Amino acid sequence: MSFERKNIAKIQGYVPGEQPKSEGFVKLNTNENPYPASPLVAEYLAKIQAEDLRRYPTPMADEFRKIASQVHGVDPLNIIPTNGGDELLRLAITTFVDENEAVVITKPSYSLYPILTQIHNCSLEEINLSDNFTLPEDFKNLLKNVTAKMCILVNPHAPTGSLLKTSFIDELASNFSGILVVDEAYVDFVDSAESYNCIPLVKKHKNLLLLRTLSKGYSLAGLRFGYGIADPELIAPMMHKTRDSYNTDYVSQKLATAALLSREYAKENWERVRISRQGLIRNLCDLGLKTLPSHSNFVLSQVPLELGAEVLYQKLKQKNILVRYFDEGLLRDKIRISVGSERENKLLIASLKEILNA
Amino acid sequence: MSFERKNIAKIQGYVPGEQPKSEGFVKLNTNENPYPASPLVAEYLAKIQAEDLRRYPTPMADEFRKIASQVHGVDPLNIIPTNGGDELLRLAITTFVDENEAVVITKPSYSLYPILTQIHNCSLEEINLSDNFTLPEDFKNLLKNVTAKMCILVNPHAPTGSLLKTSFIDELASNFSGILVVDEAYVDFVDSAESYNCIPLVKKHKNLLLLRTLSKGYSLAGLRFGYGIADPELIAPMMHKTRDSYNTDYVSQKLATAALLSREYAKENWERVRISRQGLIRNLCDLGLKTLPSHSNFVLSQVPLELGAEVLYQKLKQKNILVRYFDEGLLRDKIRISVGSERENKLLIASLKEILNA
Repeated sequence: MSFERKNIAKIQGYVPGEQPKSEGFVKLNTNENPYPASPLVAEYLAKIQAEDLRRYPTPMADEFRKIASQVHGVDPLNIIPTNGGDELLRLAITTFVDENEAVVITKPSYSLYPILTQIHNCSLEEINLSDNFTLPEDFKNLLKNVTAKMCILVNPHAPTGSLLKTSFIDELASNFSGILVVDEAYVDFVDSAESYNCIPLVKKHKNLLLLRTLSKGYSLAGLRFGYGIADPELIAPMMHKTRDSYNTDYVSQKLATAALLSREYAKENWERVRISRQGLIRNLCDLGLKTLPSHSNFVLSQVPLELGAEVLYQKLKQKNILVRYFDEGLLRDKIRISVGSERENKLLIASLKEILNA
Repeated sequence: MSFERKNIAKIQGYVPGEQPKSEGFVKLNTNENPYPASPLVAEYLAKIQAEDLRRYPTPMADEFRKIASQVHGVDPLNIIPTNGGDELLRLAITTFVDENEAVVITKPSYSLYPILTQIHNCSLEEINLSDNFTLPEDFKNLLKNVTAKMCILVNPHAPTGSLLKTSFIDELASNFSGILVVDEAYVDFVDSAESYNCIPLVKKHKNLLLLRTLSKGYSLAGLRFGYGIADPELIAPMMHKTRDSYNTDYVSQKLATAALLSREYAKENWERVRISRQGLIRNLCDLGLKTLPSHSNFVLSQVPLELGAEVLYQKLKQKNILVRYFDEGLLRDKIRISVGSERENKLLIASLKEILNA
């Protein structure tokens, strides 16, 4: 006999990308930053002593909240620090969505969203993207008419890298009666020419929750640190009621603070990724792998049918190159490739040449 | 208009003990270990580089699970690592308790339990302890007859420090049709003469979940690392379905592993705490503060009515000594005091003498 709740018994659970135990892999499967965190992060890390860990951490991560609020031009009350961005998504659903209410997402998007709704046992309304991964023409009106409590959009989109403009998010938040969560995990890699910035919208819309993470832009995936930005009335119940009281630890609070303090350093890495991304897309297209423009640190490439995306994923793995393959719908003929260092990108392209000519 | 779910809107949230920002406090309010973590923890910490944090951590914390299983004589599949013990409690409720099901706890106990049931919107059945904090005579039969899905007992008990014997837990697990969670956060401080050890029971009872934490016994409250020990069928759905996929970070996995590897060092601290505890209880009783025996790293002391527990808590705070006061039921005339270092305990006793003679 199983003790699981009925809804839990039914679900499969999220499968994270492979984290190989052995060295020597070119790892382009989980969108980690190819460049290291800032020297200030290393400096803060070197200063931490075991004795600092003897006591509980500051439950509200006050120092981080202060620095984050300064960086983003908001108040500390607009910020909630979380154990990775994933915790913020879970908290948002736990706090705001009842079992008889629905969450709207687009399909495809981050595969964790449906799983979080399954765990919480609320309903899910999936809106299919078109064949070229754009939202339906009438999406804004569609959102006006749904009675869902929450809509979660990842922007830039995963796994395509396409971007919804600030003005579009602004309109959506106005049109939607529930909470609009914009998962900006990859926002640091958006082309600067877009002038994308939704943070000022938080002062205008009481129903807008932005998700940020240090995993990608700040090269700290191993740290598990994310945060939400929203109106204090959205932040407060997650901060004071549903969050585990010491959700972020001493080390992650310190290093996350250091990372934001040395943001200028991180920005240089973002620019390097953007430049590499352009070269990577060009090279992939030249090899016959149709690849859409991307505002993220990954690209989505279509694999010729005669080869097949899953086969290509396997062949690359045999050459110690990991990319991500999703066995579902529109993604079944594509692979997602994280933008690596210049060296890694070259190794990928060289391997692809070998495989495609074989 | 608030977006909160109805059950969330109603709750107050857990209030953690004060974490003073200024130095100079004798901090006896949140049961931290007065002694530092082992030299091996410091050694592992010194080796960690920022570059180690660039990638995602091992999602299953394999190395920690292996070491923990060796330390406890179980299989790695019996272990789930969590972001502090609190996460394990939340996961257990999320995974196993439906909204129409109940959780049984005793009153008083760890004040987080009722809040977790409120967040999850399931029912709570509180069983009052007697005036001397013992379980009702018929508790075992009581548990046989309740239809609750889960019972959470903290053992040694918080905030009294009393201990239920291994044989009693064994019988309870047999009698109860739901999941018996035994929160062993303070287990490391149990008097050795008790030979308390529930881990072998995990092989016998498929419904027994033990909670451990590195916060107290291993002097790592700032790290946020706990773990569960149970039958693999209880562990698996929490591990693979309801847990955030990277719930523990790279640093905490490494240092938690180091802490268990150097357990012999921690054991010396546990013994020092036990010895100090005896002296502290004696001194408190001598001052007229009736204090029960304790198997934890804290004691619960009754404050003479003419003084009042809340007043004493405030007076100690004025002297820069923090203890814990709970404004509820049986606890209203008592203060909970963490066992500090010998120096801290002496400062406490000296301050109490001043206050009581004033």
